[in-house]
Amino acid sequence: MSEVLAIAKRLMAAPSVTPATGAVFDELEAMLVPLGFAVHRFTRGDGPEGSEEAPVENLFAIRRGSEGSKHFAFAGHVDVVPPGEGWTSAPFEPEERGELLYGRGAVDMKGAIAAMVAAVAEVPAEAGTISFIITGDEEGPALHGTRALIDYMREQEVEPDLCLVGEPTSVDRLGDMMKIGRRGSVNIWLEVEGTQGHVAYPHLADNPLPAMVAMLSDLNNLHLDEGTDWFQPSNLEITEVDVPNRAHNVIPATAKARISIRFNDKHSGASLSRKVTEIAEKHGGKARPVISGEPFLTEPGDFSSMIAAAVEAETGLVPEASTTGGTSDARFLRAVCPVIEFGLTNATMHKRDEAVAVHDLDTLARIYTRVALAALQGT
Amino acid sequence: MSEVLAIAKRLMAAPSVTPATGAVFDELEAMLVPLGFAVHRFTRGDGPEGSEEAPVENLFAIRRGSEGSKHFAFAGHVDVVPPGEGWTSAPFEPEERGELLYGRGAVDMKGAIAAMVAAVAEVPAEAGTISFIITGDEEGPALHGTRALIDYMREQEVEPDLCLVGEPTSVDRLGDMMKIGRRGSVNIWLEVEGTQGHVAYPHLADNPLPAMVAMLSDLNNLHLDEGTDWFQPSNLEITEVDVPNRAHNVIPATAKARISIRFNDKHSGASLSRKVTEIAEKHGGKARPVISGEPFLTEPGDFSSMIAAAVEAETGLVPEASTTGGTSDARFLRAVCPVIEFGLTNATMHKRDEAVAVHDLDTLARIYTRVALAALQGT
Repeated sequence: MSEVLAIAKRLMAAPSVTPATGAVFDELEAMLVPLGFAVHRFTRGDGPEGSEEAPVENLFAIRRGSEGSKHFAFAGHVDVVPPGEGWTSAPFEPEERGELLYGRGAVDMKGAIAAMVAAVAEVPAEAGTISFIITGDEEGPALHGTRALIDYMREQEVEPDLCLVGEPTSVDRLGDMMKIGRRGSVNIWLEVEGTQGHVAYPHLADNPLPAMVAMLSDLNNLHLDEGTDWFQPSNLEITEVDVPNRAHNVIPATAKARISIRFNDKHSGASLSRKVTEIAEKHGGKARPVISGEPFLTEPGDFSSMIAAAVEAETGLVPEASTTGGTSDARFLRAVCPVIEFGLTNATMHKRDEAVAVHDLDTLARIYTRVALAALQGT
Repeated sequence: MSEVLAIAKRLMAAPSVTPATGAVFDELEAMLVPLGFAVHRFTRGDGPEGSEEAPVENLFAIRRGSEGSKHFAFAGHVDVVPPGEGWTSAPFEPEERGELLYGRGAVDMKGAIAAMVAAVAEVPAEAGTISFIITGDEEGPALHGTRALIDYMREQEVEPDLCLVGEPTSVDRLGDMMKIGRRGSVNIWLEVEGTQGHVAYPHLADNPLPAMVAMLSDLNNLHLDEGTDWFQPSNLEITEVDVPNRAHNVIPATAKARISIRFNDKHSGASLSRKVTEIAEKHGGKARPVISGEPFLTEPGDFSSMIAAAVEAETGLVPEASTTGGTSDARFLRAVCPVIEFGLTNATMHKRDEAVAVHDLDTLARIYTRVALAALQGT
C-alpha cells in the first residue's frame, strides 16, 4: 500500500467535524515527531459545544534547518464539514473502492495533509526549515484557528518565508489550477423601518417596502469594477428579502434584506460597507455589514513559477493561476508571507461520498516534495 | 333599561366568532317573530371547522306590506372577529361600565342589529315590506354568506328596493359618516423562478431577486388614477416579499411577493389583474390575482338624502358621504338594489374592549326608524 494512502486513512479514520480537537491531532503528531518535528499543540475557546467560542485545537510543527536557512511552511486544516446523509460507506471509515478512496476529508483536506507528511519525509533535514501550520477550525467560524497560529508564530519569531495551503484547488484533473489569490467577502444586512397599518388606510401607515425595493434596485445597479488582470469583476448578489406577512390586508412594519458581495483587490470590506451604507441611508434604511474576508493576491512570480514547474514535472499540466471561488485561510496567512494554494480536485468536497483518486495522493506528495525543495533552495 | 340595550346584550351574549351558526340566530329569530316577521334560516357549507367550506348560517326575515308596497331591507352580520387577548371584561359577557357597553360585536355589528330590531318595532306593518338580510359570515371568506342570501331572495322574488347595511361607518361621533360606496380589492401573488447556486459562482446560478426587485419597482411606480368625484385615488401596496434564506452564501431559487390594490370604479379586478400580469411577465415572472371585491357606488341622490335627513334630525350632524375604508357585504348587495351603509362609531371595532355608547344605541334605533319610514314612503 502507498505510504500516502496509509497516512490519509489514519487521518480520515479520526472523526473531526469542525471544530476539531484530540484524536486527529494525536495521529498527526505521532507522524511528525519521527520525522524530526518539534510539535506544539494548543487549544483556544472555552464556550459550549456549537457556539462560536467552542474549543478549537491547533498544531504548529517545525523542523529547523541550519542557522539562516530558508523557512517553508505547509498550511491546512484537519477539521471537516459534517458528513450529511446518504453515504455509500461510513464517512469516517475510509474505504477503497476501485481506484478511489472514500471518506469525509478525502480531498478537503486530509488527503493533502497526508501528501504533505509524505513529502517532508523525502526532504533532507539540512535542506532548510519546514513547518506545518494546521488548524482544527477552517470550516467553522475560524476565530481561533489560523489566526491563533499566526499569533503563536509571531511570538516565537518563526514566520515562514513562503507558505503553501493544501486546499483542493484542482478542478477536473490534479494540477489544472492553483489559487494565487481569493476574492474578499462581505455580507450586509439591510433594514427599513416603517409603520404597520391596514391597506385600506395607507395614509395611517408607512410601508417600508417601496424604500427597500428602491434601495435594492440601486444596489443591484451598482457597478463595482471591470475586474483586474488577476481578478474577475466584483459581484453583488441580493441573497435574501424577508418581509413575511400572512395577513393580506396589512402593510408590514419592517422590511429586511441581505446582500452578499464577493470583491477583488480594488475594494476593501470597509470601502464597500461605506458605499452600501450610504445607499441604504439615502433610502431611509440601515446597513449592518459583516466582513468575512479581505481579498488577497500573491502576484505571479518566483513562488507561482516554482509550483507550476513542480506540477508540470509530475502531471504534464501547467496550472492556471486563478483567484476564483470562496475564501480560505490564505486570507489570514497573506499577512505573514507570500501564500499560494494548491491541492487535490474539488469535485466531491463538502458532498456525500467525498473521494480522492489514490494515484493523485502519490502524485501530490511528489509535487509537494518538489515545491518544498525549490522553496528552500530559493531562486 | 333601554330596549335596544337589552336586545344588544342578548345578541352579544351568544358567542359567534365567524362563521356563526346556532344560538345567536335563535335569539334573533325569537325577537323577530313577535314583530310579525316570517323567518327563514338556512346553513351552507359542509367542510371541517376552520376551512373555507365550514358551515355558515344565514337568516332572511320578511314582514310583508300590502300588495305593491315598497320593500326596504336592513342588512348585516351577527358573526364577529375573534376576541383576542387582554380584555377587561369577558368578551362574550356584555358589561356596562359608565356610559359604555363592552363586548365583542358591540359596534361591529350586533349593536346595529339591535337598533334595527328596535327600529322596526316602531314601524307600522302597513307602512310597507321590511326585511332582514343577516349572515353568519361577513368577517370570514364570505363565500356562503350574503351571496347565498341574494340567491335565496332572487329565487323567492323578494329583492328589496333599497337596502341599508349597518356596518360601523361613523368615525368620531355617531352620524358623522355614511358609506355610499366602497373601493374594490384585489390581492396579487407574484413569483419569479431562478436557479439556486453559490454566491461565489453566480454564473452557475440565476438569481430571481433582481427581476423581482425591478418588477416591484415598476409596480410601485404604476400610476393608477387621480381619484374621482366620489373616490380617492386607487392605491397599490406591496404587502409581502418572501425570500427567506438562512445561508449567507446561497443565491435563492425563487422569489415571491404579494401586492394589494384598493381601487375605485375607474378599474375592475380583471383590468388590474391584466395590467399587473403584463408587468410581471415583462420581468419573467408570474402573477396570480385573487379579486376579493369590485368597487361599488350608490351615487348621492334620494336614498342618501333620506339617510342624511334622518341622521341630522336625531344628531344634528350631516353625515359625510364617503367611499373610504375596506370592503363590506355591500359589494354583493349592490347587484340587487341601491345600498348605503350607516352605523355606529368604528374606533373599537376588531379591537380588545370593543364598546358602544349606550346612548348611541337608542339614537341609532331612532335614525333607523326614520330611514325605514322614509324609504317605504318613497319620494
